[in-house]
Amino acid sequence: MRQRIAVIGGVASGPAAAAQAKRVDPEVGVVLFEQGPDISYGACEMPYYVADQIPSDDTLVMLTPERFEQTRKAEVRVRHRVLGIHPKRCRLDVKDIATGRITEERFDKFILATGARARLPEFEGAEAPNVFPMRQLDDARRLKEYLGAHRVQHAVVLGGGYIGVEMAEALRARGLRVTILERSGNLLHAYLDDDLLPLVQDVAHRHGVVVRREQAVGFVLDGEGAVKAVRTDKGEMIGCQVVIAAMGTRPDTELAEAAGITLGTTGAVAVDARMRTNLPNVWACGDCIEVERVIDRRKVYLPLAPVAFRTARVAATNAARRGRVAPARFPGVVGASAVKVFELEVATVGLRLDEARAAGFDAFATQIKHWSRVPIYPGAKPLHVRLVVERGKGRLLGAQLVGEEGAALRADVLVPCLRDRWAVAQIKDLDLIYTPPFAPALDPLIVAANEAAKRVGRG
Amino acid sequence: MRQRIAVIGGVASGPAAAAQAKRVDPEVGVVLFEQGPDISYGACEMPYYVADQIPSDDTLVMLTPERFEQTRKAEVRVRHRVLGIHPKRCRLDVKDIATGRITEERFDKFILATGARARLPEFEGAEAPNVFPMRQLDDARRLKEYLGAHRVQHAVVLGGGYIGVEMAEALRARGLRVTILERSGNLLHAYLDDDLLPLVQDVAHRHGVVVRREQAVGFVLDGEGAVKAVRTDKGEMIGCQVVIAAMGTRPDTELAEAAGITLGTTGAVAVDARMRTNLPNVWACGDCIEVERVIDRRKVYLPLAPVAFRTARVAATNAARRGRVAPARFPGVVGASAVKVFELEVATVGLRLDEARAAGFDAFATQIKHWSRVPIYPGAKPLHVRLVVERGKGRLLGAQLVGEEGAALRADVLVPCLRDRWAVAQIKDLDLIYTPPFAPALDPLIVAANEAAKRVGRG
Repeated sequence: MRQRIAVIGGVASGPAAAAQAKRVDPEVGVVLFEQGPDISYGACEMPYYVADQIPSDDTLVMLTPERFEQTRKAEVRVRHRVLGIHPKRCRLDVKDIATGRITEERFDKFILATGARARLPEFEGAEAPNVFPMRQLDDARRLKEYLGAHRVQHAVVLGGGYIGVEMAEALRARGLRVTILERSGNLLHAYLDDDLLPLVQDVAHRHGVVVRREQAVGFVLDGEGAVKAVRTDKGEMIGCQVVIAAMGTRPDTELAEAAGITLGTTGAVAVDARMRTNLPNVWACGDCIEVERVIDRRKVYLPLAPVAFRTARVAATNAARRGRVAPARFPGVVGASAVKVFELEVATVGLRLDEARAAGFDAFATQIKHWSRVPIYPGAKPLHVRLVVERGKGRLLGAQLVGEEGAALRADVLVPCLRDRWAVAQIKDLDLIYTPPFAPALDPLIVAANEAAKRVGRG
Repeated sequence: MRQRIAVIGGVASGPAAAAQAKRVDPEVGVVLFEQGPDISYGACEMPYYVADQIPSDDTLVMLTPERFEQTRKAEVRVRHRVLGIHPKRCRLDVKDIATGRITEERFDKFILATGARARLPEFEGAEAPNVFPMRQLDDARRLKEYLGAHRVQHAVVLGGGYIGVEMAEALRARGLRVTILERSGNLLHAYLDDDLLPLVQDVAHRHGVVVRREQAVGFVLDGEGAVKAVRTDKGEMIGCQVVIAAMGTRPDTELAEAAGITLGTTGAVAVDARMRTNLPNVWACGDCIEVERVIDRRKVYLPLAPVAFRTARVAATNAARRGRVAPARFPGVVGASAVKVFELEVATVGLRLDEARAAGFDAFATQIKHWSRVPIYPGAKPLHVRLVVERGKGRLLGAQLVGEEGAALRADVLVPCLRDRWAVAQIKDLDLIYTPPFAPALDPLIVAANEAAKRVGRG
């Protein structure tokens, strides 16, 4: 009998896993289950779709279910909710949402790609028609429809993380007033050390975004059940016509837990480097798992698309491989991400200073301000580079870059350095490109590494 | 008696060496000799000054001689030509160009920073008032004065290397017609493998630059000794009012050779990793030396400012150090550079395919076209990435990137990879940043590394 693999979840890692399984073994039967109507879409593009910078929701979908089946040769069942998996019995319970019919199916292997869920307010109104998490394509579609059909002047965004600031920018672009409620008072505080936070606050402020060091504790609903005001922990009442729930995500581990699959310390599914769970015929990948950060060898929860794609390929290769195909290994992450905040690029790689110290490193940070191009070249912009460094050896542990251009790609330069455990003294000797239109004679990375190397006594 | 160090040459590496020597030992007497009127200027910025994108020649000078003396505490003698060095006798002959007076001075140590000279046509008229090399700040000043004072409609540029294309763009920006004579017929052929060359030709063509596969063999002079036409090897006669000599540079080794200093295989001064020449009290740095390329351990001539700055620091540290100061070592180069050609960024790191093969590698190249940002994000541009890879191990040997944005900084990402001798299979696993405004879900570097890894059977 033909081997059958079930892939559960269809946003990013699921389709990647299904396609890879068919590539590794075209004979294997692969079925992809997704409870929503869409698969294979770019969730990170949604704020730009809301801002009308990306024309239609179609362009966010990389492959429709039909097209996916045609080109990837895996079967796709959208609007099918997997109710339970029974790895020992090689069975899966699935509900066709359209008909309500529940069936049991046989599979030899399971790949969990259940992804993450948006955290929602834990008080009445969280399900109100004008409260929008920003996780699924349908969330963005519903928000745009709502904005088109209602007179919306003021939006309250719950949370100042990267989705919060991206949505604030998108809604400002549509002409709305925007207030972000952020308990810490600082936008992107999980991305940046304190010294760089004012740059983000300033740019948000310049663009008319109000940031309040408050937390929502309740909603005031109107007669139709829509939120008409947000109550905060400071006893304030903030009138609004739309609420964006950007309070972060948590791994969707419901099915895994019910099946007896072990979670890790972060609360996400625990996997080894081959993406194996504790059950012999279950692999997991994407936003429902935790991964190893190579810098401190800790498990971290890092729900980012590139990690999802990579872990999906590893999980699927190992689930589908036969005979002489070598097992695939996931080499862990450095942790690299960036976010646009109006005209600012904010990028971070590796550990923040407080993370480094919490991980047991005797660490310090140096921060410099230099230029994105030769300063006298038109369009050159200031660029702030902060390096987190281990005292003694001078090993680089992390970096944060903030500026109007050249932050994200320069952060990428440090990814191989972090992976190979470089010292800042090695980075200062890198022969990075110099040419006036693209980079100054001493690249900002070199200037920062020079400063840091002096501090460790190797300058 | 106080130790004295002579630094010969004042453009980039000379001032860097003089400043570093004083940093290492504030007691040492340092004298910097420069035959021209300026020191410490940005030669790479000159095309943008000619194009009026950089406002004045002042801004190209980082430090005037006076300011250099004040801040760096080294003595500066501009308009002084060193006629000969006598390391054994610890003597130096120097001519004050203003007065014509020649004196002999005692120095304990010498740092050669004589830089490079522009290659000039080897026929009559090379010294004509409207023939401009583009090497010294005075060349750019003279050209701008000439363009201001004469009716110049057509410029002929001799050579299609990076200075040739930068000057072509600068002169087009001033409204001139421009013809480049390039023997190979291809612009930037020393930068790129053949497959990428048409992209450069096309953009130059679109901007009205005429490229002719011809070579100048003579000038036709007018009554005042100015060039009024260029004669080519195809018997053509090209009328023009200005000629730019962008035929490359050669190391200025005259003083070194006369002093008995050994040159390397490239024709530049041979130095070890401590920047020592064959003479015990002579160090050399900058555009007059050859350096080791770490990829193939060959000596190469790479007259680039970042290399000049770094070798200067090493030479000066070792010349000035006393007691417990550890000797400095130059770790060699990867070879990374970029050039703007109208709207294109052209970047190259490491070896071209033909260079790799000439160096004895069993090499192949893969080339992909992807996007600088998420393709549906406004402003995303195609980006071509070509990787040169060693068969078998899959080791990366070099890369070329061409596109309208994100080429140069992405090339930088490969610099640490080349230095640590990475295989393409390692590069494809890098967790580079993904966020729609700055980079697509699979960065072009990852897409290229995936392609290359497939070719070596490790995809």
